[in-house]
Amino acid sequence: MPEVLQPDHHDHREPIDLLLIDGTVVTMDATYRVLPAGAVAVHQGVIVAIGERDELLARYIATEVLDCSGCAVLPGLINGHAHVPMSLLRGMVADYQQLDVWLLGYMFPVESQFVTPEFSHVGALLSCAEMLRGGTTTFVDMYYFEEEVARAADIAGMRAICGQTVLRMPTPDALSYDDGLERARAFIEAWLGHPRITPTIAPHAPYTCTDQIYIEAAALCAHFNVPLITHLSETAREVQESRNLNAATPIGYAHRVGAFDVPCIAAHCVHATEDDLLLMRAHGVGVVPCPSSNLKLASGIAPYQRLLDVGVRTGLGTDGPASNDDQDMFTEIHLAAMLPKGLTGDPTVMPARDALSLATNRGAEAIHMAHQIGSLEVGKRADVIVVRLDTLHGAPRYTYSPETIYSQLVYSTRSADVRDVFVDGVGLLRNHELLTLDVPEIMQRAQQIADQINIFLAGREENLLDKILAIGGVRQAEIFEIQVKAQISEADIARIEAGLHAPDISITKASERMQYDTYFLFHKRERGRIRIREDRRLDPGARLDSKYTITLMEDGSLGDYPFALLLSRARYTAPAEHSTRFYREYFHPDQEIEIEKYRRRWRILYQNKDFAVNIDRLVGHPQPGPFLEIKSRAWGRRDADERAALIGEMLQRWGVDTDNLVKQEYIELER
Amino acid sequence: MPEVLQPDHHDHREPIDLLLIDGTVVTMDATYRVLPAGAVAVHQGVIVAIGERDELLARYIATEVLDCSGCAVLPGLINGHAHVPMSLLRGMVADYQQLDVWLLGYMFPVESQFVTPEFSHVGALLSCAEMLRGGTTTFVDMYYFEEEVARAADIAGMRAICGQTVLRMPTPDALSYDDGLERARAFIEAWLGHPRITPTIAPHAPYTCTDQIYIEAAALCAHFNVPLITHLSETAREVQESRNLNAATPIGYAHRVGAFDVPCIAAHCVHATEDDLLLMRAHGVGVVPCPSSNLKLASGIAPYQRLLDVGVRTGLGTDGPASNDDQDMFTEIHLAAMLPKGLTGDPTVMPARDALSLATNRGAEAIHMAHQIGSLEVGKRADVIVVRLDTLHGAPRYTYSPETIYSQLVYSTRSADVRDVFVDGVGLLRNHELLTLDVPEIMQRAQQIADQINIFLAGREENLLDKILAIGGVRQAEIFEIQVKAQISEADIARIEAGLHAPDISITKASERMQYDTYFLFHKRERGRIRIREDRRLDPGARLDSKYTITLMEDGSLGDYPFALLLSRARYTAPAEHSTRFYREYFHPDQEIEIEKYRRRWRILYQNKDFAVNIDRLVGHPQPGPFLEIKSRAWGRRDADERAALIGEMLQRWGVDTDNLVKQEYIELER
Repeated sequence: MPEVLQPDHHDHREPIDLLLIDGTVVTMDATYRVLPAGAVAVHQGVIVAIGERDELLARYIATEVLDCSGCAVLPGLINGHAHVPMSLLRGMVADYQQLDVWLLGYMFPVESQFVTPEFSHVGALLSCAEMLRGGTTTFVDMYYFEEEVARAADIAGMRAICGQTVLRMPTPDALSYDDGLERARAFIEAWLGHPRITPTIAPHAPYTCTDQIYIEAAALCAHFNVPLITHLSETAREVQESRNLNAATPIGYAHRVGAFDVPCIAAHCVHATEDDLLLMRAHGVGVVPCPSSNLKLASGIAPYQRLLDVGVRTGLGTDGPASNDDQDMFTEIHLAAMLPKGLTGDPTVMPARDALSLATNRGAEAIHMAHQIGSLEVGKRADVIVVRLDTLHGAPRYTYSPETIYSQLVYSTRSADVRDVFVDGVGLLRNHELLTLDVPEIMQRAQQIADQINIFLAGREENLLDKILAIGGVRQAEIFEIQVKAQISEADIARIEAGLHAPDISITKASERMQYDTYFLFHKRERGRIRIREDRRLDPGARLDSKYTITLMEDGSLGDYPFALLLSRARYTAPAEHSTRFYREYFHPDQEIEIEKYRRRWRILYQNKDFAVNIDRLVGHPQPGPFLEIKSRAWGRRDADERAALIGEMLQRWGVDTDNLVKQEYIELER
Repeated sequence: MPEVLQPDHHDHREPIDLLLIDGTVVTMDATYRVLPAGAVAVHQGVIVAIGERDELLARYIATEVLDCSGCAVLPGLINGHAHVPMSLLRGMVADYQQLDVWLLGYMFPVESQFVTPEFSHVGALLSCAEMLRGGTTTFVDMYYFEEEVARAADIAGMRAICGQTVLRMPTPDALSYDDGLERARAFIEAWLGHPRITPTIAPHAPYTCTDQIYIEAAALCAHFNVPLITHLSETAREVQESRNLNAATPIGYAHRVGAFDVPCIAAHCVHATEDDLLLMRAHGVGVVPCPSSNLKLASGIAPYQRLLDVGVRTGLGTDGPASNDDQDMFTEIHLAAMLPKGLTGDPTVMPARDALSLATNRGAEAIHMAHQIGSLEVGKRADVIVVRLDTLHGAPRYTYSPETIYSQLVYSTRSADVRDVFVDGVGLLRNHELLTLDVPEIMQRAQQIADQINIFLAGREENLLDKILAIGGVRQAEIFEIQVKAQISEADIARIEAGLHAPDISITKASERMQYDTYFLFHKRERGRIRIREDRRLDPGARLDSKYTITLMEDGSLGDYPFALLLSRARYTAPAEHSTRFYREYFHPDQEIEIEKYRRRWRILYQNKDFAVNIDRLVGHPQPGPFLEIKSRAWGRRDADERAALIGEMLQRWGVDTDNLVKQEYIELER
């Protein structure tokens, strides 16, 4: 129990708020001083002394004396890059999707639908609770409705740099980037001067912003003296595309548009080149790689040891919980220590102490707050954590060398070992209990939001229409169609072609094409079927590029004429902007069938009604045809009857044997 | 609280020991069936049913009904490769050492000095406690005094395959490998037939064993029908040296010596080639990579996705706690999911479910126990764990797709979330409390052993003699020496050479050499100094190879003759088998000085006493000389006086100016 001492009027000791004694004090100061049984004195939010326990007990009388025996006393950990409201999306998506499916198919649709001020606030509270439990005292955020994140961090008592995200596209909180910039300005003006929360602006990344956004953001940062937060060089593809587009790496581009003229916090930099590193060192840019996220999203492994060797300000971050999935700085520190060793083949790189520095003293430099936090030094803010060392998984302990404490903290210590957390000298976690946040209430609110998203996603998994609508660009059409298909002979073809040129038939269009179709079929037929078509015109003078479409064909009701099929179904078609692989991952078909055909098509008018006549040969199919198809869209039942009769006349004229009509679709033909 | 139901004589339900209800049952069976609110029935150590909770509640009456709501019910995790007693060495060494310094400078000396039956037993108990807390129910071990590990696992109630290590070198428990093989045989005979513990033999690795050891080990395994455990292809250097030595990769070599003729568990295989993978698949070899250890020791990253694609039996292990530093299978599963993504640049590889499989169903196949464990299936042993999902760091939860459970287990779940652990249906951890192990007692015994090692290491850090003795091969010598040094001129050299050929001086040896010396100096002079010398003979007919020695020269007492130094000091010399880099990391000098000299040396007899005469030129030194040195070792003070007088005569004869003698050693000369 904390001792509470009453001041004694004859006592010449200086009164202070808090004295932490008997812990292994790991200062992370410039000389990396470690006091095996030291003491830290805190008063009015500031560290006033560090020294041997007896010395400080003699000098100070503290309102609370906290026994830290069996524990380490460290600077609070700094999470240099996060998207804290995204804890609400933790575990939402199976991990095995490509980034584009993940972003476009799940993240963006969910965010555009569900991110509200409440979402940002509740997610931020959840993350603050998790981070405090794990010893994080400062975080750097980038999200939407950022005033709600700031409000949550303030309630929690944490320290934070809150970046209002700006993109050139519409976002959940801004219809245009002008709105976004205005929103950021208002946010900064409202929160500037807060003792623990720094408001700022965060241009998302070069590939989602414009030169102008960066220029205006940098101007805002210069005016208000706040740091600019952005993502740079996270993936190899991003770097390649930037070289193509901007004739520069993303980091080179950011420099060009003024991002480095102000204090800058650059997340990731996984694919920074040697020149990028030198540029960032020259401009004092803080780099924040995110080991877990960079692995999970397959971006790669940042050049940790090179960053340190070159002398770039380097921190560490968790990124958003949807790509981690938690916000545990001990995990990130552990990875930062291990990954460079495995990658370089040199076990002497990134010693434990250096890994820990990325989340403490170096981390503070990376976020431009080293004057205030990051180490236990007299005059710095009292952001202090007490971490248990006398654990089962940390036993036994070795002390013959001062270096062993770093080894234990990095390789054996877990976030659950954090016992107490102080920010600005105020206790936020005491004896593993959170004081400022109601965890059950936060979890309940979080689950309520997740349940809504869960319903949305569950419905969408079933409903292919919603899925195809979610990815955009869809045109809807109801089809009421007569269709005849017949297997024909080469001799038939000559007669049909001749018949098409009869005087009472006018040909309005004629074309030759190859059609490559991939059908996605589902066990539940009522869900419909999806066809991805590449349509390539072969006739001279036609457009050379293939046309790609994706169509959802709902299972239709069928009627029957003696020789034709009556189909009634809805059809939704969109330009296919993604690869078949993307659609496969997105729609999860139960079965796939490919049909390749050579099609000669004529659009004709006969008796003032329009028909499509196709002569198809299937490629690589056991029943290659050729096939004759005559199709006609009707606007009603009576119109359908009339068209059916006309189709009958054409078949008779052209000598097509109506006893051998094919009543199946091509994909239903036996292979 | 667990319900205890009394059997009702009219009750037609089948009586069983334990029914786990309302958890998300993750079977990891062949179809990866997941029951969102399922039940598992256990009786007499075996799983007797899995199904919907109401169905099983209707069918069975259980002595205990365990409420698993808000939890996942999983197969117990399988740690496929460990050295469990090494938990006692956890955190002992700073992580930034090369493997050779780590092994030769710390691990081997400590192990040879401290590994006893007590060490193996206490370390194993500590590890069992840690593993059970984290949901591990089965482990595969390789260490010394393995019967003590088996005994500890038995006390803990765990399942284990215990491998008695055999090497060709002397080990803590065997003076020779014949003893080692005999020890292993006796161990197997003693423990064969135990329901949970499988005794076996573990040839350490190809580079520490011989063909014969593998042949005999395989014969032993065949005879007793137990699996052979060994390390293969852990590092790139190992593979290269194996190719040079054996004309085969380590895996190819292992096959050649019969290791694959019996069920084999091969740890690491980080540098397995494609052919190695095919070979191991063909022979049903179980491969157990250890993600953390492979990174920490800079071995690399195993080809996880290739292993699965090729169809090799693949598990997962923690390796020894000195290279991890804990034994947390959730960490290893998390890394196994993330590393392949980061390495290949493809986020679709190693989905969460596959990562989990390495520690469950696939892990069981890798250790040849899939008939008994690894999945929740009727008929398998009841090794079951209950893991909390309703945690802060796992919130909120998504259930729209069955895949999300794998994501939560792999990316958000931590070992501390494990609530209950059953092995063979017996509860070993209940509501986070260990039932079979006294943790405070074990930690105290562990710390006692560590304290002894701590003293040994602390003393050795100070005592260079102990450090040089620890690396072996040292010859000790007491030196009582007269030494004269004078700066001379080119003209002096001619006179000295002529003087050496005087009739009353016999030259017994003459040589020319280059000497490249690196001196390690320490602030505390009384610790002595270390010299690493490369000595290269230049005279024709001499041995061409350089000779390398490392010498500890203790600071000696100095006396003075009018023109000579009297040195008395101990000198310890060993052949220098390692690089200067190795020695630098091992001894941590405070200062290094290099001296390069060209030396012409004569050994002479004068007046029946032996002297060494050197004419030295220092290369690249501001005071290059030349210098004359005359040295003579004396066996006592009177002898020293006589030799000093004779040296004086020689100096006078050769016209060396005795007013300008140099009373410093070369390294003390100003640069």
